[in-house]
Amino acid sequence: MVQRITPRSVDDSAWYTDVVQAAELADYSPVRGCMVIRPYGYALWEYMQQYLDVRFKATKHQPAYFPLFIPQSFIQKEAEHIEGFAPQLAVVTQGGGEKLEEPLIVRPTSETIINAMYAKWIRSYRDLPVLYYQWCNIVRWEMRTRLFLRTMEFLWHEGHTAHATAEGAMQEVLLILEIYRKLCEEELAMPVIPGRKSDSEKFAGADATWTIEAMMGNKWALQAGTSHFLGQHFAKVFNIQFLDENNQLQMVWQTSWAVTTRLVGALVMVHGDDQGLRLPPRVAPIQVVVVPIWKNNAERSQVMGVVERIRGELGKHIRLHVDDRPDLSPGFKFNDWELRGVPLRLEVGPKDVSKAQVVLARRDMAAKHNKSVVPLDRLLPEVQKLLDDIQHNLYEQALRFREENTYYPETYEQFAEAVNKGFAIGYWCGSAECESKMKEETKATIRCIPMEQDGKPGHCIICGGEAKEKAVFARAF
Amino acid sequence: MVQRITPRSVDDSAWYTDVVQAAELADYSPVRGCMVIRPYGYALWEYMQQYLDVRFKATKHQPAYFPLFIPQSFIQKEAEHIEGFAPQLAVVTQGGGEKLEEPLIVRPTSETIINAMYAKWIRSYRDLPVLYYQWCNIVRWEMRTRLFLRTMEFLWHEGHTAHATAEGAMQEVLLILEIYRKLCEEELAMPVIPGRKSDSEKFAGADATWTIEAMMGNKWALQAGTSHFLGQHFAKVFNIQFLDENNQLQMVWQTSWAVTTRLVGALVMVHGDDQGLRLPPRVAPIQVVVVPIWKNNAERSQVMGVVERIRGELGKHIRLHVDDRPDLSPGFKFNDWELRGVPLRLEVGPKDVSKAQVVLARRDMAAKHNKSVVPLDRLLPEVQKLLDDIQHNLYEQALRFREENTYYPETYEQFAEAVNKGFAIGYWCGSAECESKMKEETKATIRCIPMEQDGKPGHCIICGGEAKEKAVFARAF
Repeated sequence: MVQRITPRSVDDSAWYTDVVQAAELADYSPVRGCMVIRPYGYALWEYMQQYLDVRFKATKHQPAYFPLFIPQSFIQKEAEHIEGFAPQLAVVTQGGGEKLEEPLIVRPTSETIINAMYAKWIRSYRDLPVLYYQWCNIVRWEMRTRLFLRTMEFLWHEGHTAHATAEGAMQEVLLILEIYRKLCEEELAMPVIPGRKSDSEKFAGADATWTIEAMMGNKWALQAGTSHFLGQHFAKVFNIQFLDENNQLQMVWQTSWAVTTRLVGALVMVHGDDQGLRLPPRVAPIQVVVVPIWKNNAERSQVMGVVERIRGELGKHIRLHVDDRPDLSPGFKFNDWELRGVPLRLEVGPKDVSKAQVVLARRDMAAKHNKSVVPLDRLLPEVQKLLDDIQHNLYEQALRFREENTYYPETYEQFAEAVNKGFAIGYWCGSAECESKMKEETKATIRCIPMEQDGKPGHCIICGGEAKEKAVFARAF
Repeated sequence: MVQRITPRSVDDSAWYTDVVQAAELADYSPVRGCMVIRPYGYALWEYMQQYLDVRFKATKHQPAYFPLFIPQSFIQKEAEHIEGFAPQLAVVTQGGGEKLEEPLIVRPTSETIINAMYAKWIRSYRDLPVLYYQWCNIVRWEMRTRLFLRTMEFLWHEGHTAHATAEGAMQEVLLILEIYRKLCEEELAMPVIPGRKSDSEKFAGADATWTIEAMMGNKWALQAGTSHFLGQHFAKVFNIQFLDENNQLQMVWQTSWAVTTRLVGALVMVHGDDQGLRLPPRVAPIQVVVVPIWKNNAERSQVMGVVERIRGELGKHIRLHVDDRPDLSPGFKFNDWELRGVPLRLEVGPKDVSKAQVVLARRDMAAKHNKSVVPLDRLLPEVQKLLDDIQHNLYEQALRFREENTYYPETYEQFAEAVNKGFAIGYWCGSAECESKMKEETKATIRCIPMEQDGKPGHCIICGGEAKEKAVFARAF
């Protein structure tokens, strides 16, 4: 029943697919390009949803819901937007048995349909800011499926806001980026680099895109969340105007932002190992799994007595699961829960009962160094301490991994080598020519121009010309 | 700014649309048949989602997510199913710029795609029961839009379960129906009649459908939730088999069930009046609205001091909103919040401050009888008592309304008159002929055969033949 997983060192891509399926996070569906998110994977997404929902509401954002279908003519209104999305559209041409006069697009993002409504609702400065978001499904045509990371349909939230001033919109962009950064670093234990996208990498229809970029286990980058400053692109196209305090007509300034179910895939790739998942305790659907150990009925009733006590005491504070499946061996169960990435395993056998103790085994450390014996009367504080420690340790491991695989090349030759081994950090003059030359020659892209810069000018790693800022270059999913 | 609402007595249908739009629950979208759910309406749906989610999980159900698209060939596999849904399908025929080999159906319900996966996952009796559900959007082609009640796209959850025995599946059907009943009666203050659908009214592909039926303000019925006993229809078509404890291959028994965003519309129709919405306190996004009253700055600072104290004390326990919009009169605000159905209004003026009191006005009672003066030091318990009382009163009003408009005709002539005035309860012999004759002649349908029966046989109200059970007959949305 526990499935074989291709070792990570042999084939990272096969390893990833094996883990996602064997741990029952997701599965392929009969519809090419679409996946099924299974309950264990959905629980990870649900945790992120709830985390974000609380923070969005605390910052006065409101959930709403806009239609799945967008008239073809709407999506064509903003020139860059349609250029970016045209190759990815799914089109409904028949409905209720008849051919449609105007085809409907299944939303690839909702700027056009939402801004058509904003034009109707927004009248006065009193209506601003409008801070709406929705949780929904999105379709972008895509046949090279990679579970969670690249699928035709995925889940996300998308925020769409309208502000009276450019400054108000820009504050929003950064407020959201910081919420995303915290989600990734503090909850998913995944270090990210916040920064700005180059023009060629920004969202189709935005003035500027802000991003957080993470390093995956194969040393490629993954864009983990984006927050777009839309300027007045859509406001102009959809004519979203308001009367300001001086009774003058003004156009709104806008943002949009999203994170998607690909974050579940990121969790797998950042923390997983040859045994399977390793989940950070904060996001883990099961934080502690209890495996009772016995050989006969007398032992069983002894052990289960203690297990029930543990369930009662710990279950109120942490997400606990007791694996009392009768016909499986403890060894099988250990492997099974390691595969599923449960941070802490709690073993109780007859000997432990007689000594009023249990054994705790950490998922984040190598076997033989990962066990401790804990007296029952110290269990809760010890478990809480270990969970905190695992959370911290997974973050530190991921950060160290990124640092060890980040290069600061001094020549273009070194650079071209570096981007195939990890992240390369170097000056970029800002020209699209350098960017596309580099992309063509190395297959890397500019992941972002980090917000953190040392302020000193330098020389472009590609052309040698003057450069003000450093960029992060890498291969990316 | 407060919009005129057509009086209910003049035109119930126009009244409904006016209220939904003026209270900002929803709006028409540029896509014919699709609506936009605005934040105030979405908050009502979100409350129902959270309520149900807790109860589904407490009964061991797990959320998951299945694809939006269903291959055309899948949806055609179950004969009754495709017959029922064929006229309502939206079809994607183009993707990524190319014509698709096999068109994809936008899910009108997910039995076929989910059961294709169950056939892959279910192997042994140990895997059963499988109790999954998903929150998602659904598309059924529909051009006669009625906000919330009838839209091309709507939101729902759909549960899909598989069991080892017919009894297990039947228990599930009734467990879920009871959760739905409680949601409607205890939270939405909307009395419902639980019962079984006639064969002609059951879900396309089910053995039997169980339903809860509510009476709306226009005396028509609304199907508020359904729970289907699918038998082995889909198991046979998708070959969902398991090895039982004796190592014999068996087919699973299944259920599916759903409630949709139409419940938001039901809330409006059951409780609303000529002033607008009346929301039951449990589900109301704002339970108490505070309207401060002042004439000058000195009064303002006095009053706002008390308001802040109230916000601090009440805000921890109830959903409270302070309407401190500076340039609107108290009278305007009163109307505005009445329109939005806030159960309790709290007024504070300078006189109240000097007497350490506030005025509370209930939304569920006629003006002039709905006010009470409450000392500040008794505020929290008094507010809680009033909210409980309003919740109870709205339920009782709706129940009384249903009882006053429910008839027990003794002749077919009386019956034909009754179903156009409200609910008619009478014996039905169970024959499809009687059902379709009645439907044709009266436009009513059999809403359900109630679970509560007195056990005595009688004579069919349509043909006069022998009948074992009574049914509820009515016009329906």
